[in-house]
Amino acid sequence: MDRKRFEQQIRFLREIDTLKNIFRQTYLLDGKRRENDAEHSWHLALYALVLSEYANEPDIDYNQVVTMVLLHDLVEIYAGDTFVYDEEGRKSQTKREADAAEKLLSLLPDDQRRQFETLINEFNAKETKESQFANALDRMQPLLHNVLTEGKSWKEHGVTREQVIEMNRHVENGSRPLWNYVKTLIDEAHEKGWLR
Amino acid sequence: MDRKRFEQQIRFLREIDTLKNIFRQTYLLDGKRRENDAEHSWHLALYALVLSEYANEPDIDYNQVVTMVLLHDLVEIYAGDTFVYDEEGRKSQTKREADAAEKLLSLLPDDQRRQFETLINEFNAKETKESQFANALDRMQPLLHNVLTEGKSWKEHGVTREQVIEMNRHVENGSRPLWNYVKTLIDEAHEKGWLR
Repeated sequence: MDRKRFEQQIRFLREIDTLKNIFRQTYLLDGKRRENDAEHSWHLALYALVLSEYANEPDIDYNQVVTMVLLHDLVEIYAGDTFVYDEEGRKSQTKREADAAEKLLSLLPDDQRRQFETLINEFNAKETKESQFANALDRMQPLLHNVLTEGKSWKEHGVTREQVIEMNRHVENGSRPLWNYVKTLIDEAHEKGWLR
Repeated sequence: MDRKRFEQQIRFLREIDTLKNIFRQTYLLDGKRRENDAEHSWHLALYALVLSEYANEPDIDYNQVVTMVLLHDLVEIYAGDTFVYDEEGRKSQTKREADAAEKLLSLLPDDQRRQFETLINEFNAKETKESQFANALDRMQPLLHNVLTEGKSWKEHGVTREQVIEMNRHVENGSRPLWNYVKTLIDEAHEKGWLR
């Protein structure tokens, strides 16, 4: 065992424990508290395992999707969660998250740093079929939670139907069936007055 | 899209949200609150991604390890968390968890129910190299959290050094290097008086 390498790995695994204290705007389905990033990442991995058959490309590498969703929010340990409808916050998001990725991933041995960096960049670029599907799940899950809590987080922020459609449109690039489902949820939420 | 199948899948993905409210005896590294099963499962998946090189068998399928750790605690949604040093609770654990698995997984379409059931059974049987490594991680992570919080959860329950060695011995079946590391942690904890 290369002792230095192992200590770097343990240091990283300790540091990422703080993702459990980064809270999102989304509520748990019981509506009692907000969801944190670690739970969210776990839930998305389960979405990937259960829903991979709905990806637009049938030969998707779903293990890659799982790995990407497990890693995609790590940067929020230092950059914090940026609410998807927070236009001001989103302006500085790319820079903040790139700095955070560098800081966090530099704890790892070089080969693993590069491996994780590549996967996080792939997720953010939304160009490969795996990243498009992973991003579709990352939008669908909070949307479903919003609908099932009667728009709790949307109402707190006065989010409109147009904003939701705009921010979730790229679900279609990953999965047309899931996008059709998401559209019915948005229509239902709008009819019930949970979206402005 | 097979509408019935899709609704079963969504029903399952909704139900498992409750894993975020199943709290374990282990504390987060900041010592401020207990860890829940969803966060724990996410953290183990990251352990698997980072530490797979230490598995006893070099050709381990680490995607399978990741999938197993993501699923392994789902049964606790109905069966609750059984503290590893709770001898009474452990007597009924197998039966309680088998019943819970049947109840939860029956929400899924048959093919996915069988797929998940197979993986959970593989994890519990600790016979394949992937399940032995997954189980090693499942023991190492809470042990590390205990040491880094000065034995907080061990002290609350009056756990002894002998108990910890007995309950963690099978780490060696998944990874000799990680077992050597775990033994140094146990010795350190005992010297510092965090273990009886």
